[in-house]
Amino acid sequence: MKIQGQPYRTIWLAQDGWRVTVIDQTRLPFRFETVTLGTAEQAADAIRAMIVRGAPLIGATAAYGMALAMRADPSNAALEAALALLVSTRPTAVNLRWALERMRIRLIGLKPRSRAQAAYDEAALICDEDVALCRSIGEHGLKLIREIAARKPAGATINVLTHCNAGWLAAVDWGTALAPIYLAHDARIPVHVWVDETRPRNQGAALTAYELGAHGVPHTVIADNAGGHLMQRGQVDMVIVGTDRTTATGDVANKIGTYLKALAAYDNGVPFYVALPSPTIDWNLTDGFTIPIEERSAQEVTHLSGLGEDGSVGIFRVVAPGSPAANPAFDLTPARLVTALITERGVAPATAEGLAGLFPEHARGAAA
Amino acid sequence: MKIQGQPYRTIWLAQDGWRVTVIDQTRLPFRFETVTLGTAEQAADAIRAMIVRGAPLIGATAAYGMALAMRADPSNAALEAALALLVSTRPTAVNLRWALERMRIRLIGLKPRSRAQAAYDEAALICDEDVALCRSIGEHGLKLIREIAARKPAGATINVLTHCNAGWLAAVDWGTALAPIYLAHDARIPVHVWVDETRPRNQGAALTAYELGAHGVPHTVIADNAGGHLMQRGQVDMVIVGTDRTTATGDVANKIGTYLKALAAYDNGVPFYVALPSPTIDWNLTDGFTIPIEERSAQEVTHLSGLGEDGSVGIFRVVAPGSPAANPAFDLTPARLVTALITERGVAPATAEGLAGLFPEHARGAAA
Repeated sequence: MKIQGQPYRTIWLAQDGWRVTVIDQTRLPFRFETVTLGTAEQAADAIRAMIVRGAPLIGATAAYGMALAMRADPSNAALEAALALLVSTRPTAVNLRWALERMRIRLIGLKPRSRAQAAYDEAALICDEDVALCRSIGEHGLKLIREIAARKPAGATINVLTHCNAGWLAAVDWGTALAPIYLAHDARIPVHVWVDETRPRNQGAALTAYELGAHGVPHTVIADNAGGHLMQRGQVDMVIVGTDRTTATGDVANKIGTYLKALAAYDNGVPFYVALPSPTIDWNLTDGFTIPIEERSAQEVTHLSGLGEDGSVGIFRVVAPGSPAANPAFDLTPARLVTALITERGVAPATAEGLAGLFPEHARGAAA
Repeated sequence: MKIQGQPYRTIWLAQDGWRVTVIDQTRLPFRFETVTLGTAEQAADAIRAMIVRGAPLIGATAAYGMALAMRADPSNAALEAALALLVSTRPTAVNLRWALERMRIRLIGLKPRSRAQAAYDEAALICDEDVALCRSIGEHGLKLIREIAARKPAGATINVLTHCNAGWLAAVDWGTALAPIYLAHDARIPVHVWVDETRPRNQGAALTAYELGAHGVPHTVIADNAGGHLMQRGQVDMVIVGTDRTTATGDVANKIGTYLKALAAYDNGVPFYVALPSPTIDWNLTDGFTIPIEERSAQEVTHLSGLGEDGSVGIFRVVAPGSPAANPAFDLTPARLVTALITERGVAPATAEGLAGLFPEHARGAAA
């Protein structure tokens, strides 16, 4: 997507042709800065410090981390050490494990002297595949936006509400939940996005607002509390969110607060869509409530990062001193509240049958 | 209620016996400071600048503002000027109008030389009546807490979720939604409060957390996004919120986000109670959706007040620069989602019949 008119991805080869440059997302939205990674250790640090975040981008960064490692030392020992280093950065990230396993399979059978080039090629392929996958999600979601537009007066704005950041900054390009919105905007459909602030980490207010603004998509930031009211008053035409993990039956684990918006959408007859790349479907799970919910640091609730009046970015406390805080990071939206799932293969009902129809190779009993 | 062991109200006569002291709520939770008001203008400024906030406290402050005005000049002209000045501070505050109308009726028929003393007496009466009213709400709510405690193992903690600040800082003492909690805590029932942060103005994280902590009530601050998840996991036994305005049919207008919590409570079978003094019931309204919703400044969403690492309180921007924000301040919780209303006369279903049963003098056709 674009930043002030210039096309970007979130990760690319540096001008020297071998190092890897990423956008430093810890500095957004107040500073746009890039970081160039020259070693697997630097790639691991970038993941650990959340300079890069979002499942696909973490996977892509880890893949390039393997390429950097192979360029320095293509031995079997170095290969295993780099895999172990990179996988340890975010133990629960499914996409990270998937990307590293794919790199291992690609590299392990090669002679050491071939590994560096193969690793760079494979990392580039992982990136390109992610872009294609997100773009497919976008195209399927675009059809849904067009259907809603067709039911409104010509030229009427389509109001889409989203939660957290499932945009291109979380992927390599396009994003998942925001991909249909970018495609609609680029197709000159008048979309406007209600951006949930997404406490406690404010990924909406910081990242989603930043990337929509940088690309030129009309949007308005709201407190997480406001979405239900807007739906009651007919100011939301559809909701599109991303997901961290979806069960084979369509239950959706996503950023804390998603469930509340799904309830409000259901109560007001607003379609609630979840955009997901199929690798985030956990085909072994049929009950979302078995997904463990990460409890993160209370400091994310009690303290915030913001831009002071003097132009410096600082950390400040917003909760009464001495009061404890709790910080569950995700919640579970039961499939019954989800209108449909938008995948790279098309749109499916949030049911076992719906997902099996799009992905028959994964359906229960498919191997039987 | 207590602050570090010492009992307080939110408004009291200063030591000189005629000026009026209030807690400066714009300085909470990071500083405890009081402001002493010596003129009606200062009382009006305190309301306008939100040094005092919460419907009952605004009414009480306005009443004392009339007393200060009458002490300075008890003429008819001064009486009308002070009424006009004070009513203009918060045009939509029903309680403010009610308190000022009551002062006018009490004072207008008196000789000027009797007005100052009568105004002080009436203002004190308004305060004492509010304390008694809140305490009654607390006692009726306490019964509900006891019922829930009786269904749990002996000694088990009762987890109550609340939104915004409907505590003693918003009233003269006790508060509305928090009154049952203070009474339960003082009765040694093990209550624990989940305190919604309540974006955008953070009344939960700042004021509710402050007053519960100062009185010694166990509590935990959470992002507004977290309540649905906690309910899904059985970690909330009941919800108690306040209200700005309730219809004769039990629809509840309250701080933005209340509706989302009511949906989650309903979806999870968690009782959802609204504590309200009967003056906040609008007996002429039967459809909550006709209540106009105030749209407040976008700056309340884009900027936050917080305590910096250097110990100073500052204003910080948290939204991507250039991104607009919207800030609807209230939402509407339909009566169908409300388990019951807790009033000073008892607990009633959120229906026209329920309210009419407790307040037959207000019921439609009561005058016929």
